Amino acid sequence: MPELEPAHGPLRRRLYDIVFLSDTRAGKAFDLALILAILASVAVVMLDSVTSLREPYAGTFLVLEWIFTLFFTAEYVVRLAIVKRPAKYATSFFGIIDVLAVLPTYMSLLVPGAHVLLVVRILRVLRIFRVLKLAHYLNEADQLGRALRASRRKISVFIFTVVIVVTVMGSLMYLVEGGQNGFTSIPKSVYWAVVTLTTVGYGDISPATPLGQTIALIIMVMGYGIIAVPTGIVTSEVVREARLGLVEPTGAPVRAPDALAHPCPACALTDHGPEAFFCRRCGSSLDHADVPLASAD
Amino acid sequence: MPELEPAHGPLRRRLYDIVFLSDTRAGKAFDLALILAILASVAVVMLDSVTSLREPYAGTFLVLEWIFTLFFTAEYVVRLAIVKRPAKYATSFFGIIDVLAVLPTYMSLLVPGAHVLLVVRILRVLRIFRVLKLAHYLNEADQLGRALRASRRKISVFIFTVVIVVTVMGSLMYLVEGGQNGFTSIPKSVYWAVVTLTTVGYGDISPATPLGQTIALIIMVMGYGIIAVPTGIVTSEVVREARLGLVEPTGAPVRAPDALAHPCPACALTDHGPEAFFCRRCGSSLDHADVPLASAD
Amino acid sequence: MPELEPAHGPLRRRLYDIVFLSDTRAGKAFDLALILAILASVAVVMLDSVTSLREPYAGTFLVLEWIFTLFFTAEYVVRLAIVKRPAKYATSFFGIIDVLAVLPTYMSLLVPGAHVLLVVRILRVLRIFRVLKLAHYLNEADQLGRALRASRRKISVFIFTVVIVVTVMGSLMYLVEGGQNGFTSIPKSVYWAVVTLTTVGYGDISPATPLGQTIALIIMVMGYGIIAVPTGIVTSEVVREARLGLVEPTGAPVRAPDALAHPCPACALTDHGPEAFFCRRCGSSLDHADVPLASAD
Amino acid sequence: MPELEPAHGPLRRRLYDIVFLSDTRAGKAFDLALILAILASVAVVMLDSVTSLREPYAGTFLVLEWIFTLFFTAEYVVRLAIVKRPAKYATSFFGIIDVLAVLPTYMSLLVPGAHVLLVVRILRVLRIFRVLKLAHYLNEADQLGRALRASRRKISVFIFTVVIVVTVMGSLMYLVEGGQNGFTSIPKSVYWAVVTLTTVGYGDISPATPLGQTIALIIMVMGYGIIAVPTGIVTSEVVREARLGLVEPTGAPVRAPDALAHPCPACALTDHGPEAFFCRRCGSSLDHADVPLASAD
Repeated sequence: MPELEPAHGPLRRRLYDIVFLSDTRAGKAFDLALILAILASVAVVMLDSVTSLREPYAGTFLVLEWIFTLFFTAEYVVRLAIVKRPAKYATSFFGIIDVLAVLPTYMSLLVPGAHVLLVVRILRVLRIFRVLKLAHYLNEADQLGRALRASRRKISVFIFTVVIVVTVMGSLMYLVEGGQNGFTSIPKSVYWAVVTLTTVGYGDISPATPLGQTIALIIMVMGYGIIAVPTGIVTSEVVREARLGLVEPTGAPVRAPDALAHPCPACALTDHGPEAFFCRRCGSSLDHADVPLASAD
Repeated sequence: MPELEPAHGPLRRRLYDIVFLSDTRAGKAFDLALILAILASVAVVMLDSVTSLREPYAGTFLVLEWIFTLFFTAEYVVRLAIVKRPAKYATSFFGIIDVLAVLPTYMSLLVPGAHVLLVVRILRVLRIFRVLKLAHYLNEADQLGRALRASRRKISVFIFTVVIVVTVMGSLMYLVEGGQNGFTSIPKSVYWAVVTLTTVGYGDISPATPLGQTIALIIMVMGYGIIAVPTGIVTSEVVREARLGLVEPTGAPVRAPDALAHPCPACALTDHGPEAFFCRRCGSSLDHADVPLASAD
Repeated sequence: MPELEPAHGPLRRRLYDIVFLSDTRAGKAFDLALILAILASVAVVMLDSVTSLREPYAGTFLVLEWIFTLFFTAEYVVRLAIVKRPAKYATSFFGIIDVLAVLPTYMSLLVPGAHVLLVVRILRVLRIFRVLKLAHYLNEADQLGRALRASRRKISVFIFTVVIVVTVMGSLMYLVEGGQNGFTSIPKSVYWAVVTLTTVGYGDISPATPLGQTIALIIMVMGYGIIAVPTGIVTSEVVREARLGLVEPTGAPVRAPDALAHPCPACALTDHGPEAFFCRRCGSSLDHADVPLASAD
Repeated sequence: MPELEPAHGPLRRRLYDIVFLSDTRAGKAFDLALILAILASVAVVMLDSVTSLREPYAGTFLVLEWIFTLFFTAEYVVRLAIVKRPAKYATSFFGIIDVLAVLPTYMSLLVPGAHVLLVVRILRVLRIFRVLKLAHYLNEADQLGRALRASRRKISVFIFTVVIVVTVMGSLMYLVEGGQNGFTSIPKSVYWAVVTLTTVGYGDISPATPLGQTIALIIMVMGYGIIAVPTGIVTSEVVREARLGLVEPTGAPVRAPDALAHPCPACALTDHGPEAFFCRRCGSSLDHADVPLASAD
């Protein structure tokens, strides 16, 4: 949340450091406590859905649920209290997640007992979405997200191609195999084609005629080859970022991004490679102060 | 379709810009409408194949089907009318797809009712191939297609190897497991070997004897390793294209290949990145005769 | 077969060019005929194993089988006749394959009729190994084989690790799940662990207890991650070969290998990178006659 | 075990060379014997768990088991006797494995016969962990382990993301499909989501409703794309290590990292390959103080 500013006052400032940052000892302890609370709370929701556990431990689960709910509510209130513009936090991604994490429990109070089972059931399951609060700690994801964004055009072409392939192949299988072998409709046949192309292969539907099996073989080998494409795209992007020195392969930025891009002092072109002494566009000296340079002249 | 020229006359010229190009606002609106029509039409064909939906909504589907057919027919006629040489378009890949997209609906008028069910069924499913009209919008695919073409020799060696492996392994399994465990013929055993090697693993046939399971283990580990080969090939190709600056990692071509290899005339350093007018090592002008260069010096 | 020398005499020399080389028109025609004969012959063996086809077409299959056998026998005899040292060819990989391709058919003459069914069955299936004759045409495989050989130490470490993982995990599952869920012995549990780790996932055995399913999840995520390792190794090797200029990414050698390695005239070190003007070991000028070089001095 | 020092005395020194090192002929023979003993012993444990083999061969297995146990005990005693600080070895990873490899057999003497079947069963299976003794010979694994450690932040982000995805998707499926289709609880649905995302696809649980199948399709395509991420990370790391010359692609370390980054003192070019004593661009001596250099000039 670096874009949020702390509210005024020394207490709020101190709480801000603890809740929003992880630089201080108290901040790290708070982060750890929050992560553990999220994981424990998600575990309770999961176990609560197991019939053989819900009956004997219903009371325990209810108590734990309210403890977590009150804790997350307190956390949300504190967050709102210590940021300069609470409305901005409340409408941010994490602000919405924070509300969703506690809302189902409060709403369950409004639902009259056992006779709207479906609603109770849905509310119960919705509590699992507090796992999304963990995304607070995914700052690294920015890194991978950036690589994915840089490849988004290739990725969309790839998905486009997969859609055309599974539609055509699924329809062919619907014609060839027909309903008696499980290919009862085109949507179901397309579902089967995706299951096969992605090499998941449940086996709930599988071709029984020789011609159908031959088409299946073609889809499998295509899937085996097509998987190489997104891998190639992502790998190329990760290798490129590492090569330009923008980031260490471990994900840690080598220097500050501004310094790294190191624009040409004359024309501001960036991304000069590691051996560059002159701007590749305008020929000006890049004048790396940090390199023990005896000019190549 | 850049190789097609517009026919004469201002109206045709304007329609050409809308239908074949996407530079203008009207052109973009037409593209969007066409994509939506294709997707909606494919969805109708799919839903029409679901028995539980076909009966109650048969009338709706029929009406929608004729609306789409008339729309695609109009589109085809306009395309023929506005290109300089209609015969060339009619015999091109997209011209044929355009015909195939509407033909089955018209042919269904010629088939007398319900007593040639198979023909009706095939005609119904064939309409799904209008999903191929989407390929109009896959210009990016050229990029990936180029990488695949560049690797075609390695890929064919790879497929050759896979064919030999599954033939030999499948035959061995036919001998070892025999008909009682589902390996009833060599083709079926080869089918099983492909299902296993590609890690699809339906489970419709699986080895039951210890020796058969041992052979299966070998195939699985081979498959696990063999998948590395096409990935390595494609990745290497994508990395190379990105490194030479032939394309941005996003897929946009930067410059002609000749200009890019192009060694520095003073020191012979190559692989200057995109936008390079001066050698990044010695600062000499790279002197690309093909670049509209005004020196920044 | 470049290591084999032709025998003396103009006829033998000419036959050698046709049978062993593909430079001449007749040589290419022979190659094509041989590939088609191999594929057709393998197809006959496959179809012959399908019960519903063997009965009506037994006679046809027998005739075809003998035609192929006589053709391959003739090919083998010619190959022996036209090489300088027949014994060397006879004991080479391809010489042995050539014998194995025809031996089963001749041996079936020696087996008295229908009362040694197993032997007949085995002989029938063994004929499929003539698919290995196709390996004559896999000269490209050298390329990939070289990359695999260069990575053999990493690959063996990888397989070693996989063996340890599946043994430990399989034994744990045997303890946790036990015989009633299909994990009847340690070998079977290890088989299951490999099926899961390689993401094949037949589903013939699958964990039923919560603890077993948890262990299964760990194996799956490990398998998902471990698959990255061979891919990384092979990709790195292919990228390296392409980068050193040893080969184009398409697999075609750029120049003759000797010239490429381009040893230093003073110390014979090879594999200098694309920008090297001086030997990186002894500092001698590499003196590329083919580079328009103004010395960097 | 290079960090362990041999104890004093010529006999111990000699035994140390045999048992801990592989430089001498006797040392290699000992390594081979130990590997074979480990593999044979693991094979006996495996076969002993197969019901149809345990009964007829129980005696043979028992004798073999004691032979292996005595051999491994002797090996352990010798190792303790010949290192300078036995306590250090005894508490090391391999020291503990050595004890675990023999402990179950001795403990089985203490368990009174057949009426504590579960204990006997567990002790029997625990013997399989002597496969971990093979890790002695995985020094190469350091190499791969290093690459994995260097990528550990990206990998943990990746696993974090997978956990969030399967939790959310599994809970959705629990709501959509419900207990009648096998999605009886959230943990079971999350298990299914992992089985699908990793493309294992047992098929023991598979979605039956159209909405459930649509969600399944999304998970499959995500899994197909997500697999690209760890591959990209590992490949980038392996490529980087190979490029810097830190290691040969075969895994053998070439030189210390500091010497390799090492810019040319005259022109600051970096990334000189292995064996580089002179700058490949300007011919200046790289002047590695740590290299035993006799100039070839």
